[in-house]
Amino acid sequence: MIARSQKHWSDDVAELLRVRQGFVLADVDPQSTPGYEHNKAHAKDDLAAGAEQLDEYQERLFAQSRVDATDASVLLVLQAMDSAGKGGIVRHVVGSVDPQGVALTAFKKPTEEELAHDFLWRIEQRAPEPGFIGVFDRSHYEDVLIGRVRELAAPDEIERRYGAINDFEKRLTDSGVRVVKVMLNISREEQKSRLAERLERPDKYWKYNPGDVDERQLWDDYMAAYQTVFERTSTEHAPWYVVPANRKWYARLAVQHLLLEALEDIDPRWPAATFDVAAEKARLAAS
Amino acid sequence: MIARSQKHWSDDVAELLRVRQGFVLADVDPQSTPGYEHNKAHAKDDLAAGAEQLDEYQERLFAQSRVDATDASVLLVLQAMDSAGKGGIVRHVVGSVDPQGVALTAFKKPTEEELAHDFLWRIEQRAPEPGFIGVFDRSHYEDVLIGRVRELAAPDEIERRYGAINDFEKRLTDSGVRVVKVMLNISREEQKSRLAERLERPDKYWKYNPGDVDERQLWDDYMAAYQTVFERTSTEHAPWYVVPANRKWYARLAVQHLLLEALEDIDPRWPAATFDVAAEKARLAAS
Repeated sequence: MIARSQKHWSDDVAELLRVRQGFVLADVDPQSTPGYEHNKAHAKDDLAAGAEQLDEYQERLFAQSRVDATDASVLLVLQAMDSAGKGGIVRHVVGSVDPQGVALTAFKKPTEEELAHDFLWRIEQRAPEPGFIGVFDRSHYEDVLIGRVRELAAPDEIERRYGAINDFEKRLTDSGVRVVKVMLNISREEQKSRLAERLERPDKYWKYNPGDVDERQLWDDYMAAYQTVFERTSTEHAPWYVVPANRKWYARLAVQHLLLEALEDIDPRWPAATFDVAAEKARLAAS
Repeated sequence: MIARSQKHWSDDVAELLRVRQGFVLADVDPQSTPGYEHNKAHAKDDLAAGAEQLDEYQERLFAQSRVDATDASVLLVLQAMDSAGKGGIVRHVVGSVDPQGVALTAFKKPTEEELAHDFLWRIEQRAPEPGFIGVFDRSHYEDVLIGRVRELAAPDEIERRYGAINDFEKRLTDSGVRVVKVMLNISREEQKSRLAERLERPDKYWKYNPGDVDERQLWDDYMAAYQTVFERTSTEHAPWYVVPANRKWYARLAVQHLLLEALEDIDPRWPAATFDVAAEKARLAAS
């Protein structure tokens, strides 16, 4: 399925990026631009055009939820190594729609209270309400990524979590949430260059965390943990999309497209009037 | 004080719009554009230029809060009659900055649980954290506006609330929150025309609520309630600004300017590195 008037794709990008059985993360080239044969300048125009589409879809979705008993919403889950561009997706893709219809959660290291509950406790509370585009900047997947690499839980608990995640996401999709799971895939070299830039520019120091290098030194372990995540949790109802992200402009365009497809699938319509339009015109005129 | 490089104002707009002793709401012309002598097209360019300033201030504020122990934040309180343009402010002014640094709350009719608590209970929970720009789309002022007009509480309780609001806002400002309170001031005729448009366009039906006409019929009561709000709660630490809003482009430019001034007052700086830059460069290079 190609979102309406998204003519700039040479192929069905969602199909190209979707994680299916037999997927091997190591085979993906983070520098590539699957389904897109234009350059960066072209992509800028295409992103702007897509932003207008996204904007209208989002408003219709929101409108519908205010009036009808619709339960539809979208949840974008963003996972990636540091500096892969999650923030840029939030800023340049999600940021193009009305903030009133967006529910963004940036999940940090769990608090003591959160740790006292099941790992999904804090996540479930942030599931988007009908009509909203929810965004998880990091998510429950941290609990099987850093959780696994850093052995923050026992192996059998980590094992249990994959199933718990699938059950949770099934409940979400059954309740009307379109779950779009995106891993932004940068190369180890690209990360080095981006972290180095943060160390060159005083206005970027705040984005640098010495801990990022510690995690970076476990790159292969993280990639193995991601591979397992894909094998265990890329389901029919909530598939993963691995988006090559060395070129930020490609990643943004691709994620925008995935959101457009989710919204196209919902196909939100302007709700009919729930009042007598003629009678209201008369009341208003007399007021 | 004029925010840096905001050269398009002919006068100190914040001073012109600020509610001082002796302020009379009925004397404000909702069609006017205080401090601005250019036209709509010019305002569009000025808004775009201001958006860039706001963007950088917001990022610096956010950066500082992530690194230093700063407690600074901004809270924009938006109040107005229906259709006055609160949504447009959120969309076109606040929407120009990174959504990751914005905390928006749209206050609806209180729930049963909320009604079981003091009227400020639900409000206090939504005060912005350090580093954020908080936005209240409606607020605790509803409790002395519709609360007063519709007699939702006893007269002595309404009386009590003005003082409680001032105390609450003093606590906020003492804790580092810059409180910017804005009433978007449209004329009764302008509201009629905007509501009529919603009844003409099927893609606007969802924004129309027959209850809006009920409230509209109490226009004079609402204006009297606003007048009292201004007299009782426009304080030194948290003044009100009444923004003429018949011209949407003026209202957006003026509110953007008020936000810029609040941020200029905070004067957030890029935080210094909290790590040894040279050492981190070496660690990164070796990784």
